[in-house]
Amino acid sequence: MRIFNFSAGPCTLPLPVLEEVQAEFVDYRETGMSMVEMSHRTPPYEAVHDGAIALARELFAVPEDFDVMFIQGGATMQFAMLAMNLLTPGSKGAYIDTGIWASKAIQDGAHYGEVYTAWSGKELAYTRVPDSAELTLQDDTRYVHMTSNETIGGVQYHEWPEVAVPLVADMSSDYMSRPIPWEKFDLVYGGVQKNLAPAGSTLVFIRRSILEHTRRDLGIYLRYDIHATKNSMYNTPPVFPIYVMEKVLRWMQAEGGLSAMEKKADQRAGLIYETIDNSDGFYTNPIEPASRSNMNVVFRIADNDREPQFIAEAAEKGMSGLKGHRSVGGCRASVYNAMPLAGAEALTEFMVDFKQRVG
Amino acid sequence: MRIFNFSAGPCTLPLPVLEEVQAEFVDYRETGMSMVEMSHRTPPYEAVHDGAIALARELFAVPEDFDVMFIQGGATMQFAMLAMNLLTPGSKGAYIDTGIWASKAIQDGAHYGEVYTAWSGKELAYTRVPDSAELTLQDDTRYVHMTSNETIGGVQYHEWPEVAVPLVADMSSDYMSRPIPWEKFDLVYGGVQKNLAPAGSTLVFIRRSILEHTRRDLGIYLRYDIHATKNSMYNTPPVFPIYVMEKVLRWMQAEGGLSAMEKKADQRAGLIYETIDNSDGFYTNPIEPASRSNMNVVFRIADNDREPQFIAEAAEKGMSGLKGHRSVGGCRASVYNAMPLAGAEALTEFMVDFKQRVG
Repeated sequence: MRIFNFSAGPCTLPLPVLEEVQAEFVDYRETGMSMVEMSHRTPPYEAVHDGAIALARELFAVPEDFDVMFIQGGATMQFAMLAMNLLTPGSKGAYIDTGIWASKAIQDGAHYGEVYTAWSGKELAYTRVPDSAELTLQDDTRYVHMTSNETIGGVQYHEWPEVAVPLVADMSSDYMSRPIPWEKFDLVYGGVQKNLAPAGSTLVFIRRSILEHTRRDLGIYLRYDIHATKNSMYNTPPVFPIYVMEKVLRWMQAEGGLSAMEKKADQRAGLIYETIDNSDGFYTNPIEPASRSNMNVVFRIADNDREPQFIAEAAEKGMSGLKGHRSVGGCRASVYNAMPLAGAEALTEFMVDFKQRVG
Repeated sequence: MRIFNFSAGPCTLPLPVLEEVQAEFVDYRETGMSMVEMSHRTPPYEAVHDGAIALARELFAVPEDFDVMFIQGGATMQFAMLAMNLLTPGSKGAYIDTGIWASKAIQDGAHYGEVYTAWSGKELAYTRVPDSAELTLQDDTRYVHMTSNETIGGVQYHEWPEVAVPLVADMSSDYMSRPIPWEKFDLVYGGVQKNLAPAGSTLVFIRRSILEHTRRDLGIYLRYDIHATKNSMYNTPPVFPIYVMEKVLRWMQAEGGLSAMEKKADQRAGLIYETIDNSDGFYTNPIEPASRSNMNVVFRIADNDREPQFIAEAAEKGMSGLKGHRSVGGCRASVYNAMPLAGAEALTEFMVDFKQRVG
């Protein structure tokens, strides 16, 4: 029996995609081998690779003057790469600190240039994102780094920052769940292991014109200009996540594209927040309503001791992955693109039932 | 029909492994989800992750004082990482230049410390590896970097260098095909996409005691000490290659382990070299016999113009991937662990037949 998997990542993927991978896994379309055994310099793989890029461009409405790259190492690797590539002597990186992931980005960036915090939500216990007016930018700022959705904290921007310098964004946990105002960005990156594919790659979009100024005195795998000009094939790419991503993107297209993903995300998360807000304080969510994530819904049971029972009973009913991140505890329902609305409905029905029984 | 895939990587994997992945792909052992949808912090994945490490240790006879790591970015990423982690001011990295891959390692290392070439085969057209007596080492050398097998050039060490400083080795293309004298090494690394798994991870072994001296002022993904102490789970690991590797290692174990792999490698490559050497110059291999690779057999047809026909006819007979690397041309038969002896037999039969028809 397929269960509803509320894991924060790796996480649920579209069932038709998994079934297609399974069906063709041993013998890919009568080539006599699996896709994962195939040289990355052969037409079947190149079709998948270029197909994934073309679909990402189309679905995400990526302007022509951006390059698309697959780079290994997760968003964590990008924390270092973006600073080492973009920061040159005399320029500074500004970081908006909205939680655990944003903090990690600034810590890594500090090894490769001058960085500073343009706003921090730490004293507010990371319960909201800032207004643009709250950001304090210094002269010679090369970029403002933002984390569009905090997977652990459950905080998400619903209005993009208005700043006079280019934005750089980690979109790992809300990638392809809504349109992006590309004109604001020089660099958009994210791990694929939430909305897009199995773990093992990031998907990185870079404004082509900035590649003229990125650093060259780096290990070759760490250079954006190499990944961009070599079509992410300087060395062997992470074939399997890219192969599955191509199918996930086709599934997204068939489901109605980005606007459909956005609408469903609002529906799923809306149902769960509504259940929390209507629970007379039995369930609580600490985030200011305007900053609530529609990908990662964090909540506590007021009587914290009930949480293990809640999580265990949910698992028995076929809903897994509801435990909050080990660093913060509580509960978390991650409702990514591939989570059916029926999953959110099943969860909220269970939440109501659980409250009635133990509340 | 399954074909014999002589691709240099990604490459052929054991059929029973592919079939097992396929069978359990959509619903992993009644968990209600695919392995690639599962949080990496759950027991089923942890069992796979730790199981792969334990099997690698056992099969490869890895001493207890080495740590095992999965790091993304391929051997190319390791070219930079090893230098940035190991080279401290005043120490130097020595590199043995045996071909294209060794050259790339030294180029990347140069960005992160003082490096020099201890021997180069360039003027010999990379037709052999050096004797230890030919290596010129300087004072304050931290490590000697070697490429145990050159995938493109078809050159392989059959005796390990005897040097007074620790060795560091890229073993990407002959990983797990023979025993390693661990006492000589501080660091052994390689992409998994030849003998071990689908593309998307390296497998890195590091002498634990050297982690006390590796650099800390690096982006966190670039630090060996972090990968080692976090059991390669600081961030989301590349689940799929690790998951498949665990199965490949079990397959290797059932097949007789490292000694069986070594014996079969010698048989497969021996058959092809014998056919080349007995062809009265119709086929040629440029490598000195003592340095010939038993993983990547490169050869030319004396009449170069016959090569496209050879490759095309072989493909019609179910043998693919025989085209040499685009940088050097010619033909190449990569015969990794998962290539059945029958594959080498079919190839040599075809080689003999082709010569008789067109020679």
